[in-house]
Amino acid sequence: MDKTLELCCDLMRRASVTPEDAGCQAQMMMRLEAIGFRCTPLRFGDVDNFWAERGEREGPLLVFAGHTDVVPTGPLEQWHTPPFEPTLQGDTLYGRGAADMKASLAAMVVACEAFVAAHPQHSGRIGFLITSDEEGPAVNGTVRVMEWLSERGEQIDWCLVGEPSSSDQLGDVIKNGRRGSLNATLTVKGTQGHIAYPQLADNPIHRVAPALSALTRETWDQGNQFFPPTSMQISNIHGGTGATNVIPGHIEVVFNFRFSTEVTDVELRQRTEALLDQHGLDYDIHWSLSGQPFLTPRGELVDAAVASIREQLGVEPELSTSGGTSDGRFIAPSGAQVLELGPVNATIHKVNEAVHAPDLPRLAAVYRGILERLLAA
Amino acid sequence: MDKTLELCCDLMRRASVTPEDAGCQAQMMMRLEAIGFRCTPLRFGDVDNFWAERGEREGPLLVFAGHTDVVPTGPLEQWHTPPFEPTLQGDTLYGRGAADMKASLAAMVVACEAFVAAHPQHSGRIGFLITSDEEGPAVNGTVRVMEWLSERGEQIDWCLVGEPSSSDQLGDVIKNGRRGSLNATLTVKGTQGHIAYPQLADNPIHRVAPALSALTRETWDQGNQFFPPTSMQISNIHGGTGATNVIPGHIEVVFNFRFSTEVTDVELRQRTEALLDQHGLDYDIHWSLSGQPFLTPRGELVDAAVASIREQLGVEPELSTSGGTSDGRFIAPSGAQVLELGPVNATIHKVNEAVHAPDLPRLAAVYRGILERLLAA
Ligand SMILES: [Zn+2]
Ligand SMILES: [Zn+2]
Repeated sequence: MDKTLELCCDLMRRASVTPEDAGCQAQMMMRLEAIGFRCTPLRFGDVDNFWAERGEREGPLLVFAGHTDVVPTGPLEQWHTPPFEPTLQGDTLYGRGAADMKASLAAMVVACEAFVAAHPQHSGRIGFLITSDEEGPAVNGTVRVMEWLSERGEQIDWCLVGEPSSSDQLGDVIKNGRRGSLNATLTVKGTQGHIAYPQLADNPIHRVAPALSALTRETWDQGNQFFPPTSMQISNIHGGTGATNVIPGHIEVVFNFRFSTEVTDVELRQRTEALLDQHGLDYDIHWSLSGQPFLTPRGELVDAAVASIREQLGVEPELSTSGGTSDGRFIAPSGAQVLELGPVNATIHKVNEAVHAPDLPRLAAVYRGILERLLAA
Repeated sequence: MDKTLELCCDLMRRASVTPEDAGCQAQMMMRLEAIGFRCTPLRFGDVDNFWAERGEREGPLLVFAGHTDVVPTGPLEQWHTPPFEPTLQGDTLYGRGAADMKASLAAMVVACEAFVAAHPQHSGRIGFLITSDEEGPAVNGTVRVMEWLSERGEQIDWCLVGEPSSSDQLGDVIKNGRRGSLNATLTVKGTQGHIAYPQLADNPIHRVAPALSALTRETWDQGNQFFPPTSMQISNIHGGTGATNVIPGHIEVVFNFRFSTEVTDVELRQRTEALLDQHGLDYDIHWSLSGQPFLTPRGELVDAAVASIREQLGVEPELSTSGGTSDGRFIAPSGAQVLELGPVNATIHKVNEAVHAPDLPRLAAVYRGILERLLAA
């Protein structure tokens, strides 16, 4: 059996639903220590993380970043195979975490084993920054490890995040940045009353409807070369007591911006509040910035990744900043070049999550090709 | 102690939260039987009702209609007195059901006692139609008793409903009709998806916002001499999975029309659906007609009530069709003239519900004055 596939299955058998690690990290550290990595378990709160490094403190630092935790299974009866028993059917490997992101973790370890065997005296350092909190609150994971590294004076030069970036085939998309994410919880206040006496009440649903209509029509920017236009989406709206004869006293609306580098979170807040003010609403709004946008332009890391994919897979990767957030948002602000590169993401977070098994050794080969280009002695 | 106040307190001590009657009706029937009423308990499902009548089958039938059930207390800690211990503080009688509508029930019984003592051989018949289901689903109450009466070939000529119709002082408002009430439950369908990939989803909240905005701006009619303009109010709106990163697959909106005789429920349905269609929505809508509008124009009953109020209270009552629905909507379609006349409604359905105690014998006197005008021998 292929070594990457074997390690991936070993990790998938461990039911590491956030924030559980279920022994995945111990298994990874054992393999890394065997090839000369110095490993430091870093438990913060109820979250297991570890840092590992190999090589001299002189020279550049290339870090593999990822998470051992997985999202819950969802409805078990909809799974065709048991989610924590990795099952190969033809070329497809089924199981929770197959694509997000145990295939990548296995490929990182196997890539390092091969690279270290060929280059025991490689230049610079290889690091691993692994958390079990990526799919959860993301409080005691990568954020805390980055603080810990910063206190030690560490500066990451290049970071490969193993998120499943590919769209239709392995390597067709590299994420070289991510949009920012800004959350808002809006409470519009009215006056509760009986539905038969609307003149004595002030219906907050009626008040907010035109404002929401205007918010959804707004063009926030046009995007740019690297980013699609900023998008606003309402995820939740709740108003009403349940009774059909009561005008409620307030309504709550939750929405989110995925924003490009053409606007700032401050501008989005100001423009939103100006629009709400124009509609004469009595409201509270609570903002929470989930991540600033970041971008890794062409440079050593992008060039090495593109060249390795071209060589190993015969594919010309597209650079993209679309899609959801990842822990890259916590690493990029340190000044690191950050790329996300991993398997096809079609099934992630769904029932019957799967990965194309032959992609596992190929992904390990791509990672090794990047190591070769950046850290070969 | 005044007889009306005494009977009202007796009824208020019985915690008759819908559909419980808690012995109120037995107490009323005992008093009515003592003055020659023939009483028929009518239990339908879990709801107690009764019918009582006195007098000859020849001649007109005047019915007192009402309910012994009360709404729940609401938060007990906000009551200044125990809700089911009627408490007199100065001239104010506190307790659940004081105004809605145990004061009226007591006044009806005491009015009949006085009237029968003076006119044992009155003309026509006096009836009582009492339910314990007015504040609830209103399925096994007045509707069923009306069916039962209809099967017996009974035709009500005049009906006095004891609902608290007064606004600032006893007798200042008589309700001589009610608006219709039409409920709608609208489900707008979209396509669920991840908030980071809005192009793969179809956000039903974004779709419905402009339609709701248009619905709230619509003028449905101008009302007329007897009815205020038709009013549409949204009572409930719910969309979203709770997760802040998921675009929901559908949204539910509940709204209600209180409508005049200038539109029909069919027109309201057609106009609403045309507006939703204009906005290109994919939707289901479920309609439920809670009551057609009805109107009792000037005539024997209105004239008797106005004259009695003028004589007993020195007040010139306003005829009004505003406010909520009542069981009058189930009686009026039989062809009866229906009026609602009762105490001040400022505190009904609230904590610390109360009635002005001196109004109780005065309300009994008003009811008696109506009996005198319509059924004196
Ligand atoms: Zn992931
Ligand atoms: Zn009532």
